[in-house]
Amino acid sequence: MALVPYVTEDDATGTVKEVYEDIKASRGLAAVPNFWRAIAHRPEYLRQEWDKLQSTLSTGVIDRKVKEMIAVAVSATNNCDYCIRSHTDALRSLGATDEEIVELLSVVDFFNGSNAIASGLKVEYEPPVFASPAADPAPPE
Amino acid sequence: MALVPYVTEDDATGTVKEVYEDIKASRGLAAVPNFWRAIAHRPEYLRQEWDKLQSTLSTGVIDRKVKEMIAVAVSATNNCDYCIRSHTDALRSLGATDEEIVELLSVVDFFNGSNAIASGLKVEYEPPVFASPAADPAPPE
Amino acid sequence: MALVPYVTEDDATGTVKEVYEDIKASRGLAAVPNFWRAIAHRPEYLRQEWDKLQSTLSTGVIDRKVKEMIAVAVSATNNCDYCIRSHTDALRSLGATDEEIVELLSVVDFFNGSNAIASGLKVEYEPPVFASPAADPAPPE
Amino acid sequence: MALVPYVTEDDATGTVKEVYEDIKASRGLAAVPNFWRAIAHRPEYLRQEWDKLQSTLSTGVIDRKVKEMIAVAVSATNNCDYCIRSHTDALRSLGATDEEIVELLSVVDFFNGSNAIASGLKVEYEPPVFASPAADPAPPE
Amino acid sequence: MALVPYVTEDDATGTVKEVYEDIKASRGLAAVPNFWRAIAHRPEYLRQEWDKLQSTLSTGVIDRKVKEMIAVAVSATNNCDYCIRSHTDALRSLGATDEEIVELLSVVDFFNGSNAIASGLKVEYEPPVFASPAADPAPPE
Amino acid sequence: MALVPYVTEDDATGTVKEVYEDIKASRGLAAVPNFWRAIAHRPEYLRQEWDKLQSTLSTGVIDRKVKEMIAVAVSATNNCDYCIRSHTDALRSLGATDEEIVELLSVVDFFNGSNAIASGLKVEYEPPVFASPAADPAPPE
Repeated sequence: MALVPYVTEDDATGTVKEVYEDIKASRGLAAVPNFWRAIAHRPEYLRQEWDKLQSTLSTGVIDRKVKEMIAVAVSATNNCDYCIRSHTDALRSLGATDEEIVELLSVVDFFNGSNAIASGLKVEYEPPVFASPAADPAPPE
Repeated sequence: MALVPYVTEDDATGTVKEVYEDIKASRGLAAVPNFWRAIAHRPEYLRQEWDKLQSTLSTGVIDRKVKEMIAVAVSATNNCDYCIRSHTDALRSLGATDEEIVELLSVVDFFNGSNAIASGLKVEYEPPVFASPAADPAPPE
Repeated sequence: MALVPYVTEDDATGTVKEVYEDIKASRGLAAVPNFWRAIAHRPEYLRQEWDKLQSTLSTGVIDRKVKEMIAVAVSATNNCDYCIRSHTDALRSLGATDEEIVELLSVVDFFNGSNAIASGLKVEYEPPVFASPAADPAPPE
Repeated sequence: MALVPYVTEDDATGTVKEVYEDIKASRGLAAVPNFWRAIAHRPEYLRQEWDKLQSTLSTGVIDRKVKEMIAVAVSATNNCDYCIRSHTDALRSLGATDEEIVELLSVVDFFNGSNAIASGLKVEYEPPVFASPAADPAPPE
Repeated sequence: MALVPYVTEDDATGTVKEVYEDIKASRGLAAVPNFWRAIAHRPEYLRQEWDKLQSTLSTGVIDRKVKEMIAVAVSATNNCDYCIRSHTDALRSLGATDEEIVELLSVVDFFNGSNAIASGLKVEYEPPVFASPAADPAPPE
Repeated sequence: MALVPYVTEDDATGTVKEVYEDIKASRGLAAVPNFWRAIAHRPEYLRQEWDKLQSTLSTGVIDRKVKEMIAVAVSATNNCDYCIRSHTDALRSLGATDEEIVELLSVVDFFNGSNAIASGLKVEYEPPVFASPAADPAPPE
């Protein structure tokens, strides 16, 4: 059980009911996921969080699948069990294979490691100095 | 100054010199970035870290620009100054605009926030139950 | 099971026994919580940790319930399972409702999110410049 | 400088201009803080983030000053420079003294420490067993 | 189950098979630990990660047991369940007692706590000023 | 400047003066480090924090230099500027070379990376199964 009871769909009224309907309709779901049922004790917050997620995922130029990868990267760094599971499932529904998921985590591995050494040695960043048209357009660390 | 002196290119010999040449050649750089010059006190580690970064960025199916976005997402979550600057510069050299960088960080914002609430309320994950072909193929949180 | 065996009350002697008695008496408990039983392998550390918690919670001007909220905020940010459960229970015993707990976590959500964007964009802080007596005396982010 | 240029008030139009006016009016400010000027490259996100902060701080039953304390607790745990400075300033404008700020951080110190040991030893949480009406109504860790 | 299926030893071929054999032979194991079986979906990454761990643990002047302590310290700070368990087991196989493990975590406790207060108050570091030959050669915080 | 003024030695009285004298005498210092001067606004907390550090560093079986390494490992993982600088200086005063400091951080790098992948893939830990007397007595991840 979560640390607060879930607000069930039967108990939902007003704003909560509207958001629940919106969640199910926009995603083709038969049941509202637990995340939303846990925070529904604060209806206005439920509304804002859902609207923010919708616009975070649906607007702009970054691809939806990339946004789910970023969600996994952040969630693995923070070690959020629910979020890792949820966004890995989302990635699979968008076509990601086992190999791709391991590739994603290998990137997360590398940068969590290099973050610690750059911070731990207090390395100073200086913009890259190009000698020539770069073979690789992005600077190496 | 970093917490260890940088190993200068003039002082580099053996493995260090080889890796330094490889870094500069593969990226078209006139100078080795400080990150590598700081860790060069351990030549074998320098070699492995560089090789790991190269294969992390160059192999697999995830786009290079996406990998730099993941690097920024991890680095912002960990608040690594060097790494945030380095990978934001990399993203710009790959064409990212101010708007796109803010979009990327808005995704990082959302998931750092939702990680805290999912963990803090101990919300239990259950796989999504689809009522119908989803309007959106990825489940909502 | 924890990664070390718990020091049972039957096995407690000397400093450990004294601290165990103190914990039970001051809180009206029939059993010593596992946290203290795990660290009791180092009696002097057990003593210091308990004394530090007592003075952290009992002295000063910040309300006890507020201190438990801060404990939940820190524990949710670090995703410490034991601590989230323990301090949420403490909040409930001090009268917090489901709605208040979600409100608390919504604050933790917002600031974990805004931390990531402020750090990730390297936004520079400048003290607020007031135009007039503020409608709201606290500056907005 | 931040990693994106700030959107100045002179350049603000449409949604950005409206949010900027709202920020200044509701807080009595002569200038929009940098946080908002950095994220204004995404107007809709600026709008949502501001609205979410407003409702996070202004609705519910938890005192405004307590919410600023939670903001400091989260920001110190994440080591977000901007946010620590901003919310410490907010606490001061709400009357916090040097002693109170150190008291707040001493609570943050204790729980960051105890989080690490509870997680590191995998201590199992069990609800408190009360022997008698508690001297202290909240359980000890 | 992990979020990707484990690559079993029966299914291992080529690089994966070689690394699996290397892991078992160098540690005298009858079965490949799950960590390696999870990442084996990317054979080159498996190879690099294993080689990096081997050289991290086997080369240099820092004692192997100390490196396992550092692994526990990092893993407790990040709250990585697998890693805390794995490296605590490793410490036990190297002779660590319950008391020593609690001592290790008490050090991790102290510094996670003091990190939060030093960062939260933005305390400025200045190198220690020695008045006399130090009774204790290392500066106090 | 820190976010609270430092309590100067001239202003110290009572408990604060006693702890300041203790810090200087036990370490042979001419001046009290800023960390202690920042928290001295709460004299009892100053006393407890100093006593806890002393017993953390001075009692038990883990070597003092190892404890400083653990302090650096934790501080690099949390990216605490003051603490990284302070404990790296302590390590140097205890004889650590540039190479050893990079070696230490390479260990911190590896485990921050492997933490993220073990957590991100939800790998399940199982105790090692030994086939034979281990070539290496500690299990591999």
